[in-house]
Amino acid sequence: MFAERLKIAQSGVQAALDAALEFHADLPVVQAMRYALRGGKRFRAFLVLETARLHGIYAAEAMPAAAAVEALHAYSLVHDDLPCMDDDDLRRGQPTVHVKWDEATAVLAGDGLQALAFELCCDTALGSRRLELVQALARASGAEGMVLGQALDIAAETAGAPLSLDEITRLQMAKTGALIEFSATAGAILAGADTIPLARYAKALGLAFQIADDILDASGDPAKVGKAVGKDRAANKATFVSHLGLKGAKARARALVDEAQSALAIYGMKADTLRDAARYVIERDV
Amino acid sequence: MFAERLKIAQSGVQAALDAALEFHADLPVVQAMRYALRGGKRFRAFLVLETARLHGIYAAEAMPAAAAVEALHAYSLVHDDLPCMDDDDLRRGQPTVHVKWDEATAVLAGDGLQALAFELCCDTALGSRRLELVQALARASGAEGMVLGQALDIAAETAGAPLSLDEITRLQMAKTGALIEFSATAGAILAGADTIPLARYAKALGLAFQIADDILDASGDPAKVGKAVGKDRAANKATFVSHLGLKGAKARARALVDEAQSALAIYGMKADTLRDAARYVIERDV
Repeated sequence: MFAERLKIAQSGVQAALDAALEFHADLPVVQAMRYALRGGKRFRAFLVLETARLHGIYAAEAMPAAAAVEALHAYSLVHDDLPCMDDDDLRRGQPTVHVKWDEATAVLAGDGLQALAFELCCDTALGSRRLELVQALARASGAEGMVLGQALDIAAETAGAPLSLDEITRLQMAKTGALIEFSATAGAILAGADTIPLARYAKALGLAFQIADDILDASGDPAKVGKAVGKDRAANKATFVSHLGLKGAKARARALVDEAQSALAIYGMKADTLRDAARYVIERDV
Repeated sequence: MFAERLKIAQSGVQAALDAALEFHADLPVVQAMRYALRGGKRFRAFLVLETARLHGIYAAEAMPAAAAVEALHAYSLVHDDLPCMDDDDLRRGQPTVHVKWDEATAVLAGDGLQALAFELCCDTALGSRRLELVQALARASGAEGMVLGQALDIAAETAGAPLSLDEITRLQMAKTGALIEFSATAGAILAGADTIPLARYAKALGLAFQIADDILDASGDPAKVGKAVGKDRAANKATFVSHLGLKGAKARARALVDEAQSALAIYGMKADTLRDAARYVIERDV
């Protein structure tokens, strides 16, 4: 079921994002926004739609929020790839935005994608809960979420001493974890239901996801991964793999998947697809 | 009254912004966010509070929206000043964020300020109208507002041929006009009232504001203006002044102020402070 539902998320979200950017098609910034929004696994959108379904909410009702989270994710990638940040030339096997256009266009396209995320999120159905959802998205995005994580990452690069395992965990919980937690709790927020079990699920899942990323960087095939690998070791960067070793990192990721799955106990069989999703994040080789 | 009410906006908004950034004070990105938020005329915040008052809404109820608009404005300045954009070293007489810190910190601080703007806007009182307000803010910020204006500005620089007066008008209506229009209609949005008269007021005011900026760049004193002047002429950039001449630009600005003031007719004397504000934008010498 997971693979099928991920595909539903992919096509639904692509249609929503295409519709949202039908204006000013002649402008390089808008072209760059569309380019940054193409492809991607749409795993965060899947989490929004799947936790919405878990709470009896139509996919159509949650689709703007699912598109919003992908727009926010896309913005973070465009800015992270900038020369003054991670300085990456490739993303999903294609030139990054600042390589294909220029830095100014990349800064602006990212800025526009963040604004688009909030505009989309406001379009979510279920009027009375939308504001809570927008507020949660803003918190996941800002200086207590993604921006905090990226700031800690930059601070670590200039600090000299490698990060401890606790520090890496804190960094990643903000950098990638906050948006995954938003995505996985979106359904509960929209339904006015308890978000705690899904937040637990998301926290474990987000860390497992990041450990899997570190494992891919340490041992993945660049042709499959679609971006440069071995960057962490070349930069002498502390990662889950540098602390735990490849075998230890894999064991930690498996334990986190178990933890994520057990957080779903109260939902019974209805949460099986989310359980499969948790296993997927450490089994993917791309 | 205008000067007193601008001061009220200044102190109220500063308190709201300080309270919003009381976390992670040790992080350079958060320090840079605070730095970018200091000072400024707070003219946009004043417009939010004054149009809220016009519709019988307490300043305290509209304050988060007033703070939000200043956070969004601050983010746009930090990113506009970047080397890949306008490459400015001075802002309000002080080093710009990327000069005082570095480019990565400036990109992230701007990103964090945009997220903060949406978070603050969600905090506005008057529950049922907040979502419309957030949506209007997202539209003013994104690829149909500020980002569009900045994109047109960059496109103009690389195009070779100078912009026509109509093209400059379109560019400025997006780049600075959209956020001024948001600010001036915020009170009506929160009250569920007609936004058309205030939108007319804001459109004329926003253009007058930009013409005054062009006049300052052409003839202002850099010590008073707090940033470099004469940049437009040095860059051979088409502006209202290059098209209309200094005298013609001043006449156009005055005509726009008349237009802005006449749009307020239906509010009677209650809108006198907004009328004064319109005159202020072309009389300020800083």
